[in-house]
Amino acid sequence: MKFLKSACLLFSLLAFLSVKSQTDENILKKIYTESLTNGKSYDWLNHLSNQIGSRLSGSLGAEKAVAYTKAELKKLGLDKVWLQPVLVPRWVRGAKEFAFIETAPGKTNKVNICALGGSIATPALGLKAKVVEVKTFEELEALGKENIEGKIVFYNRPMQADLIQTFDAYGGCVNQRYQGAIEASKYGAVGVVVRSMNLRLDDLPHTGSMTYEGVAVENRIPSAAISTNDANLLSTMLQLDSNIKFYFKQSCKQLKDVLSYNVIGQITGSEYPNEYMIVGGHLDSWDLGDGSHDDGAGVVQSMDVLRLLKASGIKPKRSIRVVLFMNEENGLRGGNKYASEAKQKGENHVFALESDAGGFTPRGFSFDCNDASFNQVLSWKPLFKPYLIHYFEKGGSGADVGPLKTETNVLAGLRPDSQRYFDHHHASNDTFDAVNKRELELGAATMTALVYLFDKYGVNPISNNTPIKN
Amino acid sequence: MKFLKSACLLFSLLAFLSVKSQTDENILKKIYTESLTNGKSYDWLNHLSNQIGSRLSGSLGAEKAVAYTKAELKKLGLDKVWLQPVLVPRWVRGAKEFAFIETAPGKTNKVNICALGGSIATPALGLKAKVVEVKTFEELEALGKENIEGKIVFYNRPMQADLIQTFDAYGGCVNQRYQGAIEASKYGAVGVVVRSMNLRLDDLPHTGSMTYEGVAVENRIPSAAISTNDANLLSTMLQLDSNIKFYFKQSCKQLKDVLSYNVIGQITGSEYPNEYMIVGGHLDSWDLGDGSHDDGAGVVQSMDVLRLLKASGIKPKRSIRVVLFMNEENGLRGGNKYASEAKQKGENHVFALESDAGGFTPRGFSFDCNDASFNQVLSWKPLFKPYLIHYFEKGGSGADVGPLKTETNVLAGLRPDSQRYFDHHHASNDTFDAVNKRELELGAATMTALVYLFDKYGVNPISNNTPIKN
Repeated sequence: MKFLKSACLLFSLLAFLSVKSQTDENILKKIYTESLTNGKSYDWLNHLSNQIGSRLSGSLGAEKAVAYTKAELKKLGLDKVWLQPVLVPRWVRGAKEFAFIETAPGKTNKVNICALGGSIATPALGLKAKVVEVKTFEELEALGKENIEGKIVFYNRPMQADLIQTFDAYGGCVNQRYQGAIEASKYGAVGVVVRSMNLRLDDLPHTGSMTYEGVAVENRIPSAAISTNDANLLSTMLQLDSNIKFYFKQSCKQLKDVLSYNVIGQITGSEYPNEYMIVGGHLDSWDLGDGSHDDGAGVVQSMDVLRLLKASGIKPKRSIRVVLFMNEENGLRGGNKYASEAKQKGENHVFALESDAGGFTPRGFSFDCNDASFNQVLSWKPLFKPYLIHYFEKGGSGADVGPLKTETNVLAGLRPDSQRYFDHHHASNDTFDAVNKRELELGAATMTALVYLFDKYGVNPISNNTPIKN
Repeated sequence: MKFLKSACLLFSLLAFLSVKSQTDENILKKIYTESLTNGKSYDWLNHLSNQIGSRLSGSLGAEKAVAYTKAELKKLGLDKVWLQPVLVPRWVRGAKEFAFIETAPGKTNKVNICALGGSIATPALGLKAKVVEVKTFEELEALGKENIEGKIVFYNRPMQADLIQTFDAYGGCVNQRYQGAIEASKYGAVGVVVRSMNLRLDDLPHTGSMTYEGVAVENRIPSAAISTNDANLLSTMLQLDSNIKFYFKQSCKQLKDVLSYNVIGQITGSEYPNEYMIVGGHLDSWDLGDGSHDDGAGVVQSMDVLRLLKASGIKPKRSIRVVLFMNEENGLRGGNKYASEAKQKGENHVFALESDAGGFTPRGFSFDCNDASFNQVLSWKPLFKPYLIHYFEKGGSGADVGPLKTETNVLAGLRPDSQRYFDHHHASNDTFDAVNKRELELGAATMTALVYLFDKYGVNPISNNTPIKN
C-alpha cells in the first residue's frame, strides 16, 4: 500500500514535470518560430542603420534614434513607453583625420588613422614628431622621459590570436587605447598612436573611448588609432630607421553636455508588478560606421523580446522592461542614470539582460549571479539544445546593466559567436550588410526564452517552484 | 592491506588518467594555437580563390587547382603525395543567361537567373511560355497535363525559415532543383524555373546540379534557377495575371568526359600503417563565384590538418591521408573512384572526415558510426569545451566520404555554424571576402583534434585503451 502510494506520487510528479517541460519546450519553439518567420528586429535595424545611421551621444542621429525607437515601441501596444532624461557628453570628430609616415623630408606614406573618442585635437597644422614604439606600459616606464619626451608614443601590442573568445583578446589590449595618453603624457610624449583593436589585418582604423582622468588640461595629448596594416608598416619602418617621423592632424573636440534620453517600454507584470526584469542594448554608437553590430543589434533584439513575448501569448508575472540606454560608448551616463533612478524609487530589479556583443549567431549567455540562480539556469540547458545554445557560464553581463547589481539579482549578457566582432567593432565597416538576418533573429529569440524562463520560475527559486532538472 | 592496495591502485589509475587527460588537453591547445597563429589555410584559400578562381569539373580552374594543391602538399614534407586519375563530366555554362517576365507584348521586367548544372540549353533564340507555379510535385500531379503542357513550371517552395539548421531547410527544398525537370517533363512542360535555394531575399541566382535520369533526350527541358527576390516578383505577377509569360535563354551544354584527378597526400602511420584515416574536401566548385566556402574552405582545412599534426609534433600511429576530391558538385566521380580503388586494394579505411559545409565557426561534428565509437566521441566532449565545440550528433558525414562506409568504421562531417551558408552556396557571392580567417582556422584545428584523438585511441576502443571519461 505504502509502495503503491509512493509509486502514485512518483507517477504524478513525473507527469507533472513532463507536462511542465513539454510546455516550456512548446513555448520556446513558438518564440523561435515567431522570431525566424515574423521577426521585426531586422526591419528595425535596417531603419536604424540605413535611415538614421551613426548615433554618437549628443548627435542628430542619436536624437532621431530616440524618437524612432520610442515611436516603434508605442506601436507594440506595451503598457507604458517613456523617455528618461539623461545629460550626455558631446564629442565631435570634426574633419576627417590625416596622417603619414615621413621617412625623409618630403618622402611620405599616407596611413589610415582616426581620433580616439574623447581625444583633443592636434594643433591646427597637425603634429609631427619622432616615434617610440612600445607594447606595454612597463616598456614605457623602462624607456623613461629621456627616450620619450617630445615624441609620439606608438602602442603596438596586437590582440592575442590564440585566445578563442575574442573579447578576452580585446580585454588584454584595450588599456593601450583607454589609458595610453595618460601613461605617455607622464613621460612628456606629445601624442599617441594606438594599433587598432582588430584581429584582422586591414586598412580600417577603429575608434573607441580614451580618458585623460587626472591629467591637467595643459598636459593632455592627442590620441589616434591606426589601422592594423599601417601599424605593421609603421613598425617595420621604425625597425629600418628609428628616426622616421609621424605626422597626424585631427580636429575633434569635446563640447558641452547635452540633454538626451534612455528609451523605455514596459509590460506590467500580472502577479508581481513591482519586480522588474529588464532587457536592453545601447542606442548610441560610434560615428564611423552605422553601429549595426554595436549596438543596433542589441537595441532591436531587446525591442523584439517584448514583442515576441506578446506574440507568443506569454503574459509575464513580473514587469518586463526594454531599456535602450544612451551613451554607453563614451560615458555610460544612461546606464548609471537608469540604475540610480531605480534605486531612488526603490524599484526591485530582479533580472537584467544586455545584448552588446554583436548580432552574430547566439551561443548562450554569461551570468553575474549567485550559485542558486546559476544552477537554475543550468537546469534549463536541455531546453536550449535544439537551438544550439550551449554556452552558460559565469562572467560579466553588460556595461549598461552592471550598475543594477545587487547580492541576489541576476545580471546576464547575450554571448553571440565572437569571431567576426572585432573586424567591425568601432570601425567604418560596422554596417548593416555585416549583419545576417537569421543570426540577429536567433539572438532575439534566445533572449526572449531566458526572460520567459526567469519570469516563470522566479529568480530565487523556492522548493515548490523547482524548474525541470537537467 | 587489501584496502591499501586498492587505494594505491586507484591512486595510480587516477594519476595515469590525469596525466593522460593533461596530455590531450595540452596537445589540443598546441593544435589550436598553431592554427590561429601560424595557420596556412587562409593563405592557401586566398590563392585558390583569388589566383585560380572557380573550379568546375573539367575546367582550366580545376586543372590549375590540382597542380597547385599537389605542389603545396609536396612542400609539407609528407611521406607521399600523388594524383589519382578520374574521368569527370564537363558541363559548360556558355554565355550569361538572360530572362524576363512579359506582362504584355513589349512590356518586360528583367529577372536574374542562371542555368542549373547539367541542364540543356534553351533554343538559340530563347524560350517563351506561360508559367504555372507550384510548391510541390503533388501539386504538379494534381494540375496534370491539361494545365501544364507547353508551359514553364515555376517551382517556388521556399526554404523553411524556422528550421534552426539551414541544411535541414535545404534538404526540404532541393528536390525541386534536382528532380524538377524530370517531374515537369512528365506533363509536357517546356522548361523549368526554380526558386534559388537561399534563405535570404536578394538578387543572386544559385546554381546546383539537376538530373534528367530516365528521361529520353528528346523530352529533356531546360532548367534555370531564379533569385529569391525575382521568385517573389514572378509569384506576385502571376497572382495579378496568370497569363503573363516568362522568357529565358541559356546556352549551356554537356561536353565529353575529361581526365582529372583526386589529389592525395599521406603521413604513413608508425604502428598501423595499413589502417587509413582520411580528411578531405572537394576541389571542384561551381562556376559562379570562386568556391571559397564550397568547398575551398574544406580543401585548405584538410590540407592544414596534416601540417598541423606535424607542426604539433604528433606522429600518428595510423596512416593519415588528405584527399582532395574532384567532381563532388556534378557527379561525385572522385569520391566514388577513391572508394572503389580503396576496396580493390583492400585498404582498411577506419575513419574518414569531410569538411564541406563552409568555412564558418565550427560547432562540432556529425557522425555516421556505431554506438561504441559514438560513445567514445562523447567521452572527448570536455576536451573540446575550451574551443566552444559542443555539437556531437549522429547524422550524415559528407558526400565524398560516404562511399567508404563499412559496418565498423567512423565517417564524420565537420559542422560549422550554418546560418550564413546558403547566402553564398552556389552563387556568385561565394567568394574569399565572405570567409573569416579565424573561423576557417578554428575549423582546421577542430578537425585536427578529432583526427589526433581517433588515431591515439583507435576506432574500436579496447578496454585497456579507454579514453578519459566525460
